[in-house]
Amino acid sequence: MPYQNIQRKVLRTICPDAKGLIAKITHICSQHELNIVQNNEFVDHRTNRFFMRTELEGIFNDNSLLADLDATLPEGSMRELNNIGRRRIVVLVTKEAHCLGDLLMKSTYGGLEMEIAAVISNHATLQTLVERFDIPFHLVSHEGLTREKHDLEMIAKIDQYQPDYVVLAKYMRVLTPAFVQHYPNQVINIHHSFLPAFIGARPYHQAYERGVKIIGATAHYVNDNLDEGPIILQDVINVDHTYSTEDMICAGRDVEKNVLSRALYHVLAQQVFVYGNRTVIL
Amino acid sequence: MPYQNIQRKVLRTICPDAKGLIAKITHICSQHELNIVQNNEFVDHRTNRFFMRTELEGIFNDNSLLADLDATLPEGSMRELNNIGRRRIVVLVTKEAHCLGDLLMKSTYGGLEMEIAAVISNHATLQTLVERFDIPFHLVSHEGLTREKHDLEMIAKIDQYQPDYVVLAKYMRVLTPAFVQHYPNQVINIHHSFLPAFIGARPYHQAYERGVKIIGATAHYVNDNLDEGPIILQDVINVDHTYSTEDMICAGRDVEKNVLSRALYHVLAQQVFVYGNRTVIL
Amino acid sequence: MPYQNIQRKVLRTICPDAKGLIAKITHICSQHELNIVQNNEFVDHRTNRFFMRTELEGIFNDNSLLADLDATLPEGSMRELNNIGRRRIVVLVTKEAHCLGDLLMKSTYGGLEMEIAAVISNHATLQTLVERFDIPFHLVSHEGLTREKHDLEMIAKIDQYQPDYVVLAKYMRVLTPAFVQHYPNQVINIHHSFLPAFIGARPYHQAYERGVKIIGATAHYVNDNLDEGPIILQDVINVDHTYSTEDMICAGRDVEKNVLSRALYHVLAQQVFVYGNRTVIL
Amino acid sequence: MPYQNIQRKVLRTICPDAKGLIAKITHICSQHELNIVQNNEFVDHRTNRFFMRTELEGIFNDNSLLADLDATLPEGSMRELNNIGRRRIVVLVTKEAHCLGDLLMKSTYGGLEMEIAAVISNHATLQTLVERFDIPFHLVSHEGLTREKHDLEMIAKIDQYQPDYVVLAKYMRVLTPAFVQHYPNQVINIHHSFLPAFIGARPYHQAYERGVKIIGATAHYVNDNLDEGPIILQDVINVDHTYSTEDMICAGRDVEKNVLSRALYHVLAQQVFVYGNRTVIL
Repeated sequence: MPYQNIQRKVLRTICPDAKGLIAKITHICSQHELNIVQNNEFVDHRTNRFFMRTELEGIFNDNSLLADLDATLPEGSMRELNNIGRRRIVVLVTKEAHCLGDLLMKSTYGGLEMEIAAVISNHATLQTLVERFDIPFHLVSHEGLTREKHDLEMIAKIDQYQPDYVVLAKYMRVLTPAFVQHYPNQVINIHHSFLPAFIGARPYHQAYERGVKIIGATAHYVNDNLDEGPIILQDVINVDHTYSTEDMICAGRDVEKNVLSRALYHVLAQQVFVYGNRTVIL
Repeated sequence: MPYQNIQRKVLRTICPDAKGLIAKITHICSQHELNIVQNNEFVDHRTNRFFMRTELEGIFNDNSLLADLDATLPEGSMRELNNIGRRRIVVLVTKEAHCLGDLLMKSTYGGLEMEIAAVISNHATLQTLVERFDIPFHLVSHEGLTREKHDLEMIAKIDQYQPDYVVLAKYMRVLTPAFVQHYPNQVINIHHSFLPAFIGARPYHQAYERGVKIIGATAHYVNDNLDEGPIILQDVINVDHTYSTEDMICAGRDVEKNVLSRALYHVLAQQVFVYGNRTVIL
Repeated sequence: MPYQNIQRKVLRTICPDAKGLIAKITHICSQHELNIVQNNEFVDHRTNRFFMRTELEGIFNDNSLLADLDATLPEGSMRELNNIGRRRIVVLVTKEAHCLGDLLMKSTYGGLEMEIAAVISNHATLQTLVERFDIPFHLVSHEGLTREKHDLEMIAKIDQYQPDYVVLAKYMRVLTPAFVQHYPNQVINIHHSFLPAFIGARPYHQAYERGVKIIGATAHYVNDNLDEGPIILQDVINVDHTYSTEDMICAGRDVEKNVLSRALYHVLAQQVFVYGNRTVIL
Repeated sequence: MPYQNIQRKVLRTICPDAKGLIAKITHICSQHELNIVQNNEFVDHRTNRFFMRTELEGIFNDNSLLADLDATLPEGSMRELNNIGRRRIVVLVTKEAHCLGDLLMKSTYGGLEMEIAAVISNHATLQTLVERFDIPFHLVSHEGLTREKHDLEMIAKIDQYQPDYVVLAKYMRVLTPAFVQHYPNQVINIHHSFLPAFIGARPYHQAYERGVKIIGATAHYVNDNLDEGPIILQDVINVDHTYSTEDMICAGRDVEKNVLSRALYHVLAQQVFVYGNRTVIL
């Protein structure tokens, strides 16, 4: 058995809960002589739904494995088998450098299993930063365009790179439904508040006005309702009366970039399952 | 100079900012031969307002000291001079024991500089717990009463104890404006969410529905608008997809009691200044 | 099938890792018509060891189930099948009330699935507190006794209550090896520092001297080497230059009681596996 | 009074505590017609020492102001008056990119009030990263040199840039006393553990072996005893049994860079006072 044929893949299953599911799925893996490196599962007893992430090692016959699973899993199941490894992403930005800089550092020097195929912006501000890292930068200006037309131009540019995910690293424009639907469960955004507090524009200004003692950031999948997609990760920091709005904005930058980066870590490792408006991270 | 006359007091000043305020106030304290044990100040440059908390030690002539201050401070100033020491509180509860239990422990065994004069509830559920600690418990049932009438009965009962503060330790009723106005900046509530997220009833159910990854609690002064008074302190904990609503409620209890207790710590030490809808903690 | 026979139990397995373990174990559960309510597993690839916690529901034939497992699991396996439900604990204390108070509250009013069978102390200080909650208190003074003799008296008293766990809720004496070995993996301690920093006596004094900006607490199983048993949980809080040693002690109390309580939560739910000097929490 | 003469400076005072200090210092500021933008003070009652940071705005006559202060402050006082503004730093690194990358991003795109004058390393690994940001990189190899000789070469190179601070952004060599004494209270290090736990080499390996549930990082001034200088800031993250040493190293990187960055923020704003082995941050 030549060593080079041994691969590592992730099997992800979502299906209605039923007796014996773990036994059945892991038995099929055993029959295919695949070793389970790591297995995690969760049953949502409220909706009676079963989630499992199985990291497998061995010599794969994908079609045969999936066929065996399909013959066994209950109706209404979703299963996918993916290679482990670097994912390809396109980053969308506007003018703020901090999240982008962190992603550029980690894709270049390690920390996130991804290749940034391109950075696209509606402003030229961050072109120099992107080019420092020898990555293509594209300006797709929204000047004189309807939102729909601009998003179509964005889609056209993004699709040239065939990314696995589109990451909004402080892309400060509302996306059209057409855009969102073009990339189902593929668009990840960082919002600069601990949602659902301070939905919408200028959350730090809202936070200052309310006099909160904690500010935060939220990484989430983007769906049709702005700031209402499934939440992947959130984190917060303490603030006090000495913080002006500008101080909050400044302190918040580190939280934003940390939350986005950690959320991407889980997404890239195929640990995140989207189910309704929730995420399950296994 | 007999030792027994030496006291420790806190001088609290809020006034429009002006040149030389710190020098003037501390100079007056020096003239009165009072030693500054600790001094903290803050200038809100947005509203041009000055806050100072001065912990003083020495032999006090309160009237003379305050008169000197009044002659020096700009128009629109608020100043107060208070003894340091245990405060007297009345606790209002409904049926949940965790916050009350923590307050009873800390007033009895140390941790909060307060005496619980009485616990008042609209249910009899917690009577045994209160009596374990030899503290008066009063049932003021709301059955058959309008909200206004019930609150008047509550006020009558509370006022028998002349408390410095009224602490709502999971008192699950909305207070009338008459109640709130009767105790200006004296009523402290613990709300079981990180406000302004999940205002209103059943915040953990709301949190579950939204699929958040963080839950929290907020201690705040109560004003006329429910859940909208000045925030004193907030804290959060991480949750994940395995948490049911009930798990959130259970895990949230420790956050609630911790936040309430720490907020009270600052209030009892006279460190909290209320200004508009904000607090300054010095 | 009468409803009253349906039970919920936890199967815990530790064994050398091998291909197909999950499939085999879950298959046996299926054959016994037991439903897997929740399953969690972990493989420590460094030591090649497999851990699984399986929450099962159904009609149990314990002997038959365990026999089937024994016939299947590799040599060197440990498996146990326990009822889910309240555990019986004995609490050991010295003079500090805060951890004990939290445990009394939670055993009485909910939050921890345990019954406090008795509280035993080498001082009478906390007798009143324990009796407030109608729980037996025993004074086992160490005056005039060798450490060995005192521990034997403690063991005699503890064993009258046949507890599942012995919880040291700020019991400020070093235990003899004889004591520790008498309760293997059953003694849980709260240490008032984030171990391994500040091992030994007076950790807050040590923390003050070192000028740290974080203090913490550690819940751990007790083994022969003081403060070196397997860690269950740790948590920390920020401190700054304004904290005296006494302030740290005071602020630390809430961390200590929270960490102990959360660690016990996991222990009582049979989620904690001890393996060498480590814990695996599933 | 021409607007361009108005400046903002920070007055920093450390002296033996005495009655009336705040009044005297702020009075002198008033006499010089300087407005106090922000004032913070702290008295360490254990050592009877007074610390004050006064942010002043106005037209400065430095010599006259300092002379007036010297005539007023008690013997043994330290006072300094500094401009507010960007500081000049030299960064020392070895092979890890994450802390350096964050500093490069923040000095270039905002977040830290500093100019990175140069980056110096004993390895060439990070040359490309530094040059991406158009900043001088110097390789000062330690090959074939004694520690003393190498440090002298480092000093010679650093001193060409006359930095305000030397930042060790994962510089993995022990410094000689000669180096440390050459830059008193000017060298800031990030250590990859929550000191004093895991002093010395390979702290994550030590953390793994001990089975801790929390890892952290510590930013501190460097003094003669390695890993024992005054701590500026610490932070931690939770880990669990699933973390290998490599996972801890990876997760720790974000903590390290965040802690170093926030510590530098305070240092650059002249908020950090070193006193014995402690820091006071005002």
